[in-house]
Amino acid sequence: MSFLLNAWYVATFSREVGVDAPFARTLLGRPVVLYRDEAQRAVALDDRCAHRFAPLSQGRIVQGALECPYHGLRFNAGGQCVHNPHGDGRVPSGAQVRTYPTVERYGAVWFWPGDPARADAALLPTFPFVDPDSNITHEGYLHTRAHYQLSADNLLDLSHFQFLHPDTLGSEAMARGDVQSGHLGDTVWVRRSAYDEALQPFVAEGFGVAPGTRVDRWMDVRWTPPGLLSIVIGVTAAGMARESGLIAPSAHWLTPETERTTHYFFAFGLPKEMGDTARQLVRYAVEGLMKPFESEDLPMLEAQQNNLGDRDFWEMQPALLPIDAGAIRARRIMERLIAAERADAAGSQAASARTIAVAPVADTSRAVA
Amino acid sequence: MSFLLNAWYVATFSREVGVDAPFARTLLGRPVVLYRDEAQRAVALDDRCAHRFAPLSQGRIVQGALECPYHGLRFNAGGQCVHNPHGDGRVPSGAQVRTYPTVERYGAVWFWPGDPARADAALLPTFPFVDPDSNITHEGYLHTRAHYQLSADNLLDLSHFQFLHPDTLGSEAMARGDVQSGHLGDTVWVRRSAYDEALQPFVAEGFGVAPGTRVDRWMDVRWTPPGLLSIVIGVTAAGMARESGLIAPSAHWLTPETERTTHYFFAFGLPKEMGDTARQLVRYAVEGLMKPFESEDLPMLEAQQNNLGDRDFWEMQPALLPIDAGAIRARRIMERLIAAERADAAGSQAASARTIAVAPVADTSRAVA
Amino acid sequence: MSFLLNAWYVATFSREVGVDAPFARTLLGRPVVLYRDEAQRAVALDDRCAHRFAPLSQGRIVQGALECPYHGLRFNAGGQCVHNPHGDGRVPSGAQVRTYPTVERYGAVWFWPGDPARADAALLPTFPFVDPDSNITHEGYLHTRAHYQLSADNLLDLSHFQFLHPDTLGSEAMARGDVQSGHLGDTVWVRRSAYDEALQPFVAEGFGVAPGTRVDRWMDVRWTPPGLLSIVIGVTAAGMARESGLIAPSAHWLTPETERTTHYFFAFGLPKEMGDTARQLVRYAVEGLMKPFESEDLPMLEAQQNNLGDRDFWEMQPALLPIDAGAIRARRIMERLIAAERADAAGSQAASARTIAVAPVADTSRAVA
Repeated sequence: MSFLLNAWYVATFSREVGVDAPFARTLLGRPVVLYRDEAQRAVALDDRCAHRFAPLSQGRIVQGALECPYHGLRFNAGGQCVHNPHGDGRVPSGAQVRTYPTVERYGAVWFWPGDPARADAALLPTFPFVDPDSNITHEGYLHTRAHYQLSADNLLDLSHFQFLHPDTLGSEAMARGDVQSGHLGDTVWVRRSAYDEALQPFVAEGFGVAPGTRVDRWMDVRWTPPGLLSIVIGVTAAGMARESGLIAPSAHWLTPETERTTHYFFAFGLPKEMGDTARQLVRYAVEGLMKPFESEDLPMLEAQQNNLGDRDFWEMQPALLPIDAGAIRARRIMERLIAAERADAAGSQAASARTIAVAPVADTSRAVA
Repeated sequence: MSFLLNAWYVATFSREVGVDAPFARTLLGRPVVLYRDEAQRAVALDDRCAHRFAPLSQGRIVQGALECPYHGLRFNAGGQCVHNPHGDGRVPSGAQVRTYPTVERYGAVWFWPGDPARADAALLPTFPFVDPDSNITHEGYLHTRAHYQLSADNLLDLSHFQFLHPDTLGSEAMARGDVQSGHLGDTVWVRRSAYDEALQPFVAEGFGVAPGTRVDRWMDVRWTPPGLLSIVIGVTAAGMARESGLIAPSAHWLTPETERTTHYFFAFGLPKEMGDTARQLVRYAVEGLMKPFESEDLPMLEAQQNNLGDRDFWEMQPALLPIDAGAIRARRIMERLIAAERADAAGSQAASARTIAVAPVADTSRAVA
Repeated sequence: MSFLLNAWYVATFSREVGVDAPFARTLLGRPVVLYRDEAQRAVALDDRCAHRFAPLSQGRIVQGALECPYHGLRFNAGGQCVHNPHGDGRVPSGAQVRTYPTVERYGAVWFWPGDPARADAALLPTFPFVDPDSNITHEGYLHTRAHYQLSADNLLDLSHFQFLHPDTLGSEAMARGDVQSGHLGDTVWVRRSAYDEALQPFVAEGFGVAPGTRVDRWMDVRWTPPGLLSIVIGVTAAGMARESGLIAPSAHWLTPETERTTHYFFAFGLPKEMGDTARQLVRYAVEGLMKPFESEDLPMLEAQQNNLGDRDFWEMQPALLPIDAGAIRARRIMERLIAAERADAAGSQAASARTIAVAPVADTSRAVA
């Protein structure tokens, strides 16, 4: 699989991970189990017992360790087997499950599938509006049957609102508006404006705009690798300064499940000071968006993926339009980062002899017979 | 996929293709969309937008062009993008969807997946009895989970009637009858006769034969590449000349959907002069045949395909019987045509810039029509 | 597929194979049809007509031969085509279906997928307690979505009782007990004892032990290639000699369906002299075990297989525990036997020119055209 490994990905929302029962999810093609240890720290392990590959997620959490449901071995937060209930109870060396660095932020548990030594929480882009310390947030999750970059294309080019979501998000004014894009390092931004627009009821109501009112709307999208976006929608009376309007910021996080499926996490947040209004609005936004996302975006993404099949995006020789500038920039950045990571890995392998652990099968077997 | 490309295949029945909504179908492994332009002409395009591979069949028909449901690009009957609703509206060069030659005949839309320059309506074999100008016709469609040549085998060797369709089409007399086959150019014919036969009620009633009457029955099958058959069933009182009997002609058209699935189109037609009788009979035949086709042929073809798997037919070292002569001849013709088309394609590619393969379909087809 | 071919495998229980209708099953990746000939002898053939690959299992049994449902060819117990209902009725040479040696024993039909010359009933290991001549038996069958060796691992290491089957088969005492294993030639044995144990109600009732009674329990497992096991469970009052206890012997036979799925046959038997008591107990055991087997073992085996994927067992670098000694020994024996069989096959092929029958396709085709 051609994923960027040295990067933070959302594994799941924080509330899904508890001390009572483990949580299983396939991430970047790997079975992963998440749980909380006795210090309430989120732990991510390969969901595969070191002994006979049973899914640890079907076992119990015992004293901060995960117990395998098949033979009862227990693995701690470091992935080390700490308990063997059989015979003399000795734990075989090498009974170790791979563990992934995690960090908990913005209401989500993030995990790092690459080199643990490089996992630095400071590398996480900021999504301050969904920081639960200062905001009231609401979250949505959708399973998407398409490559995560098709989802990123979708979010980086909101010109599809008018065609795919004519009854909820789009309007004729969007095609007449303007769009700019650019990048700063590996961050891509796309800014789209629609002028003198009559909003669809769903959006109008969310911004407290009376039916029929003419407004200007802007949509600022920011993308960072590997697929972490924020979208700020702003609305103001037509012709007025942006400062006089209202904004609705949201986070959109894409985590590949496999080469052809994606976990799509999104969240809205508004300052705690707004109280019940914030609570109502973030819920309204998430629940209202679920409908077009599920019934319009998901089938489209899946249809694109079906037409793409196993082919590479560029092999399809896609026609390029000005509206694609941001999405293409993001794809180029990902290609560069993945190529660099691979070159790096190839270099390390060449430099040092391979030292993959070989289980001393024969000896052990003889010893235990 | 190893299909003959320079040939006419049925895409669908004419009535399925309209001006109101596009029609999607996978043909020879390709997603194809069909619709009618403003001149009512049937158009066939790759069902894949040139921009981001969205299925055009999920879009609208606007002024004779297909509008992509994702970003609103429009493509005309020539596959050219003629409308970009975004920004300055310029259409990028290269925004072009592949189009396929079509011809409408015998109540069906035919498409040509090969070199458009070779697409000649005159190459179509004739099926005059289902020409809607002079006939009352009725049609049936079945999706078959088997390679189209297994279906052709089935139709070219009706000796299976007795074993697979004992209650509707078969009789003991069929095995006692005689069978001849031959070919004229690339057309294969098989003529089978059963003498002094008691027909099953379904066939007897269709021919207006009183129960228990002894008859002679003949079944003339004609096959032309790639899988276009006509079958004429005739019945006469036992011992009487064929001229004193009645015939029921039908067309059977096989279009590969994939290497393992087939679109099976069939149609009956009788002269308009026969009026209501014709209307009743063609409906009776199609609806009556649906039962054995669906419940007996389809499961058998699928079971054969399962046993064949990914192997080539000859790799299975099939035992050959005299009854197989026609089917084997047809397979040999297809193998020769496909090999010639490939050799041709390889030659052209070596010799010059891309000019897609040529098969000698034209001459042969003309010779036998 | 990497199966041992020169070995006896259970095809099905004897009662499944009759004279009225053929029985189909995929065995070692091959479609096989079973039926009884006029002498009541169980016959196993490739379930694939020599003519057009139709499944013979969908046909009729006629005078001890199988009639193909498609064109009516008939094949006898030797796999030879003995009847062609068409034309002059001549049977083409080469119309031959592969047949497999069978033997009927212990209430099951065994088949030999390898070299027929080596098929010797004497090679079958003994399971005297399910010999229907002297025992009352009861049988169970489960389809398992995992490699058959994962099932063998499961049966060879009953330490999982405590974790996977805590409410029916397990107890805390099992981990505290002792386990020994060894091998004699290619037979592996594992003996496990639990002392001073309170049995779960299911086991207690089966052995007629009053609730709460302290017992000693022993579990003797014997494995022979390719996956034929007997398990004898014994129970006695705590501290008493084994001779004073009761035993429940059972057979467990694993036949690969494919590389990833297994037919699991098991049977209990008790002496006919025990009469109704035996009848009740063997039924109680089979029906009672169905629940943990189906709801606990099968999902676990399937989960293991999912985590294993297409990888080899050793590629996963499994941690080895003392409890694995028997299972690992059995795996090593299978690896050695399969390697030897392949080396043997490679040798034979090198020694003599290949003499596989080539159907004279071209000539025949010409002859019948």
